[in-house]
Amino acid sequence: MPDRDEDSTEPVSVADIAGWDLEADVVVVGLGAAGACAVLGAVEAGAEVVALEAAGAGGGTSAMSGGLIYLGGGTPVQEACGFSDSVEDMFQFLMAASGPDPDRAKVRAYCDGSVDHYGWLVEVGVPFKAAFYPEPGLEPPNEDGLVYSGGEDAYPFDRLARPAPRAHKPQHRHAAGRFLMDRLLAAVATTTARVETDVRVMRLVVDTDDRVVGVVARQAGRDLHVGARRGVVLCAGGFVHNDEMVQRHSPLVARCSLRLGNDFDDGRAIRMAQALGAAVARMDAAEVAVPITPPRKLVTGILVNGQGQRFINEDTYYGRVGQEILFRQGGEAYLIVDEALYEVTRAGLGASWVAETVDELGAEIGLSAGALRSTLELYNRHAADGVDPMFHKAESFVRPLEGPLGAYDLRVTNPACFYATFTLGGLVTSTDGAVGHVDGRPISGLYAAGRTTSGVAAFGYASGISLGDATFFGRRAGRAAASS
Amino acid sequence: MPDRDEDSTEPVSVADIAGWDLEADVVVVGLGAAGACAVLGAVEAGAEVVALEAAGAGGGTSAMSGGLIYLGGGTPVQEACGFSDSVEDMFQFLMAASGPDPDRAKVRAYCDGSVDHYGWLVEVGVPFKAAFYPEPGLEPPNEDGLVYSGGEDAYPFDRLARPAPRAHKPQHRHAAGRFLMDRLLAAVATTTARVETDVRVMRLVVDTDDRVVGVVARQAGRDLHVGARRGVVLCAGGFVHNDEMVQRHSPLVARCSLRLGNDFDDGRAIRMAQALGAAVARMDAAEVAVPITPPRKLVTGILVNGQGQRFINEDTYYGRVGQEILFRQGGEAYLIVDEALYEVTRAGLGASWVAETVDELGAEIGLSAGALRSTLELYNRHAADGVDPMFHKAESFVRPLEGPLGAYDLRVTNPACFYATFTLGGLVTSTDGAVGHVDGRPISGLYAAGRTTSGVAAFGYASGISLGDATFFGRRAGRAAASS
Repeated sequence: MPDRDEDSTEPVSVADIAGWDLEADVVVVGLGAAGACAVLGAVEAGAEVVALEAAGAGGGTSAMSGGLIYLGGGTPVQEACGFSDSVEDMFQFLMAASGPDPDRAKVRAYCDGSVDHYGWLVEVGVPFKAAFYPEPGLEPPNEDGLVYSGGEDAYPFDRLARPAPRAHKPQHRHAAGRFLMDRLLAAVATTTARVETDVRVMRLVVDTDDRVVGVVARQAGRDLHVGARRGVVLCAGGFVHNDEMVQRHSPLVARCSLRLGNDFDDGRAIRMAQALGAAVARMDAAEVAVPITPPRKLVTGILVNGQGQRFINEDTYYGRVGQEILFRQGGEAYLIVDEALYEVTRAGLGASWVAETVDELGAEIGLSAGALRSTLELYNRHAADGVDPMFHKAESFVRPLEGPLGAYDLRVTNPACFYATFTLGGLVTSTDGAVGHVDGRPISGLYAAGRTTSGVAAFGYASGISLGDATFFGRRAGRAAASS
Repeated sequence: MPDRDEDSTEPVSVADIAGWDLEADVVVVGLGAAGACAVLGAVEAGAEVVALEAAGAGGGTSAMSGGLIYLGGGTPVQEACGFSDSVEDMFQFLMAASGPDPDRAKVRAYCDGSVDHYGWLVEVGVPFKAAFYPEPGLEPPNEDGLVYSGGEDAYPFDRLARPAPRAHKPQHRHAAGRFLMDRLLAAVATTTARVETDVRVMRLVVDTDDRVVGVVARQAGRDLHVGARRGVVLCAGGFVHNDEMVQRHSPLVARCSLRLGNDFDDGRAIRMAQALGAAVARMDAAEVAVPITPPRKLVTGILVNGQGQRFINEDTYYGRVGQEILFRQGGEAYLIVDEALYEVTRAGLGASWVAETVDELGAEIGLSAGALRSTLELYNRHAADGVDPMFHKAESFVRPLEGPLGAYDLRVTNPACFYATFTLGGLVTSTDGAVGHVDGRPISGLYAAGRTTSGVAAFGYASGISLGDATFFGRRAGRAAASS
C-alpha cells in the first residue's frame, strides 16, 4: 500500500482491517437533514443503522438555515391557503428555474413524490401551519407555513407554469432550520438507530469486488472501523469551506462575503467517493443570495450592472439576482431608488450614493457618461404607462423613478453587501441515491444525498430546494441502501 | 474483481496481466500536439518510448486546427516584426484573459519558458515566417507568422499589459494544423520512439502501490498490454464529443452548432484517471468562437443582447464574444450594422433583418419597444465624438451608425451561425504534467497534457493557447515521465 497520510481519502481494503468496532446494515455519514432522513428511511426499510456525525451533535448546515422546504403539487398547506398547485406546474417550474438542464429524472421523482413527502415529514414530527406569508424570499419571521421562494409568480416563470408558493416553513416563530433538525433528530432518537457524534469519517472500506462495506473514522484520536453490511450513505454536506475545491471548480464563490456552511462542509465525502472513481457533476454551480429585500418595496427600484444597464426583473427571487450578478454581470451591480423607496434593507444595506440628478448619480458611482440616464429614461418612459416591456416586472412595482436618487452598492467587492453562497455541485447519484462511477455503473454499496450530491438544483435555485432535496432523496437513499 | 464490461475505464491490477506485449520507459497515449511533444520530450530525456494513437495516423484534433501557437515574451518572430514583448506583459495578459483565476504556476512557467519553447519548436522542424498579418483572430490565410489572437490590443487587456501579437502560425499557405502535426510527427519519426496506430487505450494498469505501470489497449479487436517502466502520459484530447460528460459538466456546450474535435475527444483518458482518484478542474470551461469577423470592418457595428443592450467591445477577440454570448447573455445576440458596413462574414453569415429605421429593426428582431433605439442613441451620441465610453472600442471602429440598418442573427439557436466550441476542463496537473489525486498527492507514474488537462486557459481563451499549452506542457510531461 502507498503511504497514506492522515488526511488521505483513499479507500482501504477490508483485508487491511482487523475487524469492525461497530457494524450495522446501513452506515449513514453526516446527520444534517439528508442524513437524518437517510436514517429514518433505512430504519423504515428494516435496517439496523449506525449514523456517524463529525460534530458534537446532529444538525449540520441544515440547522443553520431558515428551514424552508420546497414542496408542492397540492400539499394540504397549499390547499388550505387557497393555492391550487399541480405536480405538472411544479415540474415545469423546476425544469425552468433549476437549470440549465437539471436532471430530469430527479426533478420528476421529486415532484411526483412531493405531496407524499409532505405527509411523511408531518408524520415524523415536522409540523406546518396552514398560513400564507405574503413577503416572498426570506423565511417568514413568524409561524406562517407557506411563502413564495423562487420567483414563481414573477417573470419569466409566471409564463411557464401556473404560479404557486411552495416553500413550506416548519411551524416555528424564528428561523426554523434548528427546529426542523431537532424534530428530525428526535424522530431518529425514537428508532433503533445508533448515533455516534464527534466521529469524523475519513475513508471508505472496500472488499475485493470494489463494493463499499464500511468506513474508517476518527473518534477521540483513534481509528474507528464501522462495517456496513448493506450500504454506506454519504450525507456530509458540500465543499464551500474547502478553498482548494472552490478554487478548482468555482473560483468566483471565493469572492462572496459569506460562505454558508459549517466547518465540515469541506467536500471530504465527495473526495472519498471520487477516490473510488465516482463521477461528479456541475461542480461550478453555487447558489448566491443577494437579499435586496425585504422591504419588498425596494423592487420598485431598478437594478443596473457596471454599464448602468438593467439586467433582470427586480421582483424575481434574490437568489437569482445574486447568481446573475456574480456569474454573469462580473460581480458588479447597483440598486437605484428614489426618495420614496429609500430604506435600509433587512440585511443592513443602505444607499452608498445619493444625488439630485441621474447624471450626478451615475458619475458618483463611476458609470460611463450618459449610461444611467439612458437606462432611466427608457425605463421611466414605459413606467409612466405602468409597464416594463424589457424585463416584465409586475405592474405593481413599476412607476417612474423621479427626483433625487440613491444607489445601493451591490458589488461583490463591497464587504457590507451580503453575498451568501454555498455549493450545489457534487456526486452523480440515481433517483435512489446510488452513487455513479465515471463508467456509468453504480458503485456497489455506496449512496449519497443532500449537498454531497448534484441534486434537483443543477444550478438555478429557489429557497427550500436544498432541504427539500436533502430530505426527499435522503430518505430514498436510506431505503435503497437498506434494500440492497 | 467486479464485472468489467468492454467500455470500463477502471484500472487493472498488474497481477491480473499475464505479461506485456510491449514495454518501454514511457508510454504516451495520443499523438496530437501534446502527445508528439511528450514523445520528443521523453526521448530527449533518454527514455525508450512507445506512443499509442487511436486513429490510423497521428494528428488528432490539433491537425484539424488553424495551427496557431501562443508564444511570446520576445520571440525572434515578434522582434523581427517590430513588436517589443516581455515575459511580464505576456504573464499579465494571460492572468487577465484566461481566467477567472487561472493556474498561476502554469501561466508563470508557460511565459517564462516561451522564448525557449519557440526555439525548440524551430529546432524540431516547425518553421515560422517573420511577417505580421494585420487582421486579428483567424489564422492568416497566407504564410505570415504572427497575428493578434486574443484581443491583446483591445479593451480591457490593452490597459492591463503592453499589447503584442503572440499567435505564431507555422509557415504554411493554408490552415497550419495539419502542417504543424506533419512536422512534429516527422520529428517523432526520426527518434527511437515506436508508434502504434489504431490502438485504443482502454484502461490503466497499476501495481500494488497504486503506481501506474502500463495500459491495456485494444488493437484489431484484441487486448494489447503495454508496460511503462517510468510513466504513462495521457495526451488524448478533451471530452467535447462525449454527450454525457458535456451534459454533466457544461450543458450549454451542447447547444453550439459545431463541436470542434475528433471522435476520440470522448474524455476517456480523463475518466481513466478519475477511476484512479484523479482530480479534475474547471470542467464547465469551454471556448466558444463566434466569428463575426473577418471582414474586420464589421466591428464598427454594435453587438446587442436579447434586451437590445450592448455587452462587450466589438473589437475584442471573437472567442471572448462567443463565450460571453453563450455563458452570460443567454445565447442571444445580434450584430447591428449600417449599409456602409454590410458584408457577408467569412464564416458565411449575412444580415437576417434589414429596416429603414431602428424602431422597425428592433421590432423585426423582436426586441422590446424602444430598447434598440435607446442603445443606438447613446452609442451614436458618443460615436459622433469618436469615443465609446461604455466599452472602450478603439476609436478607429467608432462612428455613428446611420440610415437603413441590418442585423445579423447570432443566436445559438440559429443553425446558420457558427458556434465553434471545445472543452477546456480536465485533469489537474502540476507544471511538469504530474496528474494530481483528489487528496493532493501526485498519482505515481501518471502524467497528462493538452486538452486532457485543465491548462493555461482556465476558462478565458486566446487562439493559439491550446497548441501552445499542448506543445509546452506535453514536452515537459514527457521529460518528467522519463525522469521519474
